[in-house]
Amino acid sequence: MKISDRIAALRGEMEREGIDIWIVPSSDYHQSEYVGEHFKARQYMTGFTGSAGTAVFTRDKACLWTDGRYFIQAEKELEGSGITLCKMGEPDCDTIETFLEKELPVEGVIGFDGRTVGIGEGKGYEAAAARKSGTVSYQHDLVGRIWKDRPGLPGEKAFALEEKYAGESAASKLTRVREKMRERGADIHLLTSLDDIAWLLNIRGNDVAYCPLVLGYIILYMDRGELYADAKKFSEEMLAELTGNGIILRPYDEISEAVSALPASSCVLLDAERVSYELYRRLPENVSVKESENPEILMKCIKNDIEAANIRKAHLKDAAAHTRFMYWLKKNIGKKEITEISAAEKLESFRKEQEGYLEASFEPISAFAEHGAIVHYSATGETNASLEKGKLLLTDTGGHYLEGSTDITRTVALGEVSQKEKEAFTLVTQAMLRLMNTVFLYGCSGANLDCIAREVFWKKRLNFNHGTGHGVGYLLNVHEPPVNFRWKEGKTPAQVLEKNMVITDEPGLYIEGAYGIRLENELLVCEDEKNGYGQFMRFEPLTFVPIDLDALLPEEMTEEERKMLNSYHKKVYETVSPHLNEEEKQWLREYTRLI
Amino acid sequence: MKISDRIAALRGEMEREGIDIWIVPSSDYHQSEYVGEHFKARQYMTGFTGSAGTAVFTRDKACLWTDGRYFIQAEKELEGSGITLCKMGEPDCDTIETFLEKELPVEGVIGFDGRTVGIGEGKGYEAAAARKSGTVSYQHDLVGRIWKDRPGLPGEKAFALEEKYAGESAASKLTRVREKMRERGADIHLLTSLDDIAWLLNIRGNDVAYCPLVLGYIILYMDRGELYADAKKFSEEMLAELTGNGIILRPYDEISEAVSALPASSCVLLDAERVSYELYRRLPENVSVKESENPEILMKCIKNDIEAANIRKAHLKDAAAHTRFMYWLKKNIGKKEITEISAAEKLESFRKEQEGYLEASFEPISAFAEHGAIVHYSATGETNASLEKGKLLLTDTGGHYLEGSTDITRTVALGEVSQKEKEAFTLVTQAMLRLMNTVFLYGCSGANLDCIAREVFWKKRLNFNHGTGHGVGYLLNVHEPPVNFRWKEGKTPAQVLEKNMVITDEPGLYIEGAYGIRLENELLVCEDEKNGYGQFMRFEPLTFVPIDLDALLPEEMTEEERKMLNSYHKKVYETVSPHLNEEEKQWLREYTRLI
Repeated sequence: MKISDRIAALRGEMEREGIDIWIVPSSDYHQSEYVGEHFKARQYMTGFTGSAGTAVFTRDKACLWTDGRYFIQAEKELEGSGITLCKMGEPDCDTIETFLEKELPVEGVIGFDGRTVGIGEGKGYEAAAARKSGTVSYQHDLVGRIWKDRPGLPGEKAFALEEKYAGESAASKLTRVREKMRERGADIHLLTSLDDIAWLLNIRGNDVAYCPLVLGYIILYMDRGELYADAKKFSEEMLAELTGNGIILRPYDEISEAVSALPASSCVLLDAERVSYELYRRLPENVSVKESENPEILMKCIKNDIEAANIRKAHLKDAAAHTRFMYWLKKNIGKKEITEISAAEKLESFRKEQEGYLEASFEPISAFAEHGAIVHYSATGETNASLEKGKLLLTDTGGHYLEGSTDITRTVALGEVSQKEKEAFTLVTQAMLRLMNTVFLYGCSGANLDCIAREVFWKKRLNFNHGTGHGVGYLLNVHEPPVNFRWKEGKTPAQVLEKNMVITDEPGLYIEGAYGIRLENELLVCEDEKNGYGQFMRFEPLTFVPIDLDALLPEEMTEEERKMLNSYHKKVYETVSPHLNEEEKQWLREYTRLI
Repeated sequence: MKISDRIAALRGEMEREGIDIWIVPSSDYHQSEYVGEHFKARQYMTGFTGSAGTAVFTRDKACLWTDGRYFIQAEKELEGSGITLCKMGEPDCDTIETFLEKELPVEGVIGFDGRTVGIGEGKGYEAAAARKSGTVSYQHDLVGRIWKDRPGLPGEKAFALEEKYAGESAASKLTRVREKMRERGADIHLLTSLDDIAWLLNIRGNDVAYCPLVLGYIILYMDRGELYADAKKFSEEMLAELTGNGIILRPYDEISEAVSALPASSCVLLDAERVSYELYRRLPENVSVKESENPEILMKCIKNDIEAANIRKAHLKDAAAHTRFMYWLKKNIGKKEITEISAAEKLESFRKEQEGYLEASFEPISAFAEHGAIVHYSATGETNASLEKGKLLLTDTGGHYLEGSTDITRTVALGEVSQKEKEAFTLVTQAMLRLMNTVFLYGCSGANLDCIAREVFWKKRLNFNHGTGHGVGYLLNVHEPPVNFRWKEGKTPAQVLEKNMVITDEPGLYIEGAYGIRLENELLVCEDEKNGYGQFMRFEPLTFVPIDLDALLPEEMTEEERKMLNSYHKKVYETVSPHLNEEEKQWLREYTRLI
């Protein structure tokens, strides 16, 4: 079926159910950022493959909202579909709320699959409908009805993450979570976010591409718990471990019924941003609700010392693999055929040589020349470019290791690049280094510090349309809230940077149709000196891969910035060179030379 | 009466009324930051003369909470009083809330004069009492009972601020405020903050030292208004003007009765941070309340173009006066007796020569050597130091002009100062210049930008215990919310920086017992280039007084920082020199030379 046929079929279902506007978000039933194939309804309905976006269909209009990372990609992918791209955050772009206000007829119905929408979002749609004396419909899955060849739910095996990797037992985590439940006056905790579940039980799986997660829900009581997941995924040993921790297994699809039958007068702790609207509506009336962010979120974001030590190891392996890739690329460009995809495969092959490597931590970006300007570009057979001298290659890739996950971006000059590209590359380097080397007082958030990176851009009246950094999970999601570098704050106050949080530092400059440059290091939040002024904090770089000196203009940098780069490159050489052969070592010495 | 006798007398009154804990805030009945003599109950009870602080008395304990600006001063002033200093924000310091929790007996009573406490604060005390099954008492003024020689309420004349100064008529402002009332669904607006009242009606007065305000309250209806103030303060002309705008005058002390008698079923817009708890408790039950920040606050903070043009003029006059003072100081130090107080008087005398100058805009700080480390030091006959060569003089002063108010700090080397002091001075200069010269995207708040100034401090593991900047009123309060540079956010999200806001940039370094250095320029928020990335913004400096090159180490600064200073000094010379005599001009050329 073509996209337009799918939309026509959807409109048929909408008419049948008396629904005026149908909303298709990107989420699975767990409000995940990245979702399994079964859940890609928004992609099915629009053809847009990005990870974030919401499609809205009226009886005669079709629109897709997405954010700055995806503007260029979405424009391309929506071409000819008849779907209008709505650029979130742009001054002339209506919000979905405004759009609903304009388009919903009086006493109209806004519909969506309630399992794919968070509580807050669902209530927002309720309110939008109420303003027109209308209602919402959340019990149907209209896209499911028309999607004939829909992939089934994943059935991949789960595995246990040993304590030498996790650094804390599930039993200990359960005790800490129950303390938080008690503090917040709850006796039941409904936990539906997949990374929180994986962290809490020290289990990992393979149900979402690039995310080592197990599809499931938890109902946690003070003295026991129920895990709603496919039993076939678990080994005998894992089941015994779960039972030992008082967790029994129930079928995945029984969660709705179980929520409907929660004990009277209980108080349920749940996260309105993460629990689905459908489950929320299932809660019995005599059950009270304590809405609060999942306590697991902050706990897992603050890595323990064993995790931090492991993460350093994972990054060392990753740095060796990535450095060898850079050397290979510099040596072979112009000599043999290399494409975006084959380059990414080569990098992956270097990672695969590393012990404890499991898989890529997200869909690799390997973007040549103007493709680099598409922030979340993914090369396909159709777009796959051959690399040539005289342009830049941007790779944003990462790996899952038993010792943690990595996320690194490097932009590399293939041969000699233009002065303009070098100027841009230097600017991005300055921003990345400045943030990495800043020192701050405890209490600062990423909203306070973001402009340390952006200031050099802003002084040149430039900017980039994405956050400067995000938290990174430990063999979990590579985008892990609540920590980030974002000057524009969201609904909740920005998260204070705590010791042992892991955060990326990834400014970029994107010139549509010409080139894209991004550099990304991961940072570990560390304590520095404590004195009469308070506790000072700083960042320890985790990523040790050279910044391509072929693309840099040292004369554009301040002395302090050059010192930062020299000191970083010194550490790169010390850290990585023991893992290279003589030829690679020689190359690395050259590419980490003083400037 | 000694402080200890006053406390004993207060405890007698507490016992009589059955009150366990009595709280004395710094406010008048309008939640003002600076208050008239009549209202200085906290100072009367503790001897602490700072502008911010809260005294709390139990039957056997006496404590004073104040913030970082006042730690050193409060320690000195409380010496021997038996009152414990509680340093707000320090890690080991209980909050008032925790203290109440610990000290209030079960079923105890927390008391305070409800007129001197805001609604939010009063509700906080209610909640604290409720946690111990206790109550609050807010109808008494216990300090008033024991304060025999209490000054009366001020009776100074009010005056009208002409439209050529205010830039907008009261009628137009009333229309805009009523629009906001309508938007927020209110038909009455209870306005009790003195600066909002003065702004709204284009009136000024002299009821609070350094604040050209008129004591009063407004009850604003959609078609008329009542101003509760002393009629004797107003000329015939002003009364006619008020009447013309539909505002009638009522006696100041009839406000409580008037609030008790508000029409049934009306909806009252009020600002819970600014209206007193007493008035709030007076509201009839059948009146509904719309709590929201006074709409006047943001309106007056965003200056109109006429005000902005006037403010530039005021600063030009102020710069001429201040530059002449600096020259005089440099010329005469070591030749004649100059003290902290006589220096401040000299500076004031230069200001008085300027046309349109009214009075100082706050209590001048003139702090020699180690006095500079006391952030809000005020020289008294006792502490008044003689200025000597080899040390620094810090002056933080300002003036009210018909064209606006100024606030400027300069630290000046008297003769040759030590290398350490020069290093510190250079650091403060770097911080001030960096913030003044930053460029940012529209949408940034002072919480985003504060670290642009602080980063140079933090890298040396230094800090200063006060905000980096505050809004400045137009012939109003010199500290004007809601705009500021503060990385630690308060209860509400930080205010976005809007075009034509005026804000100070005043980092400092304070070494107790040795020296204090602060430099303060006022900045006007301006629009810069608008392009595909958004609307860029920058700051226009309003203050044009040299940064003392005798105290500066140019070799410690980056090339960019030196450029910033040179460019600023160039503007200083161009702006100020036409208003100086030949000798002064010569001096200014020398002190604005390229470095």
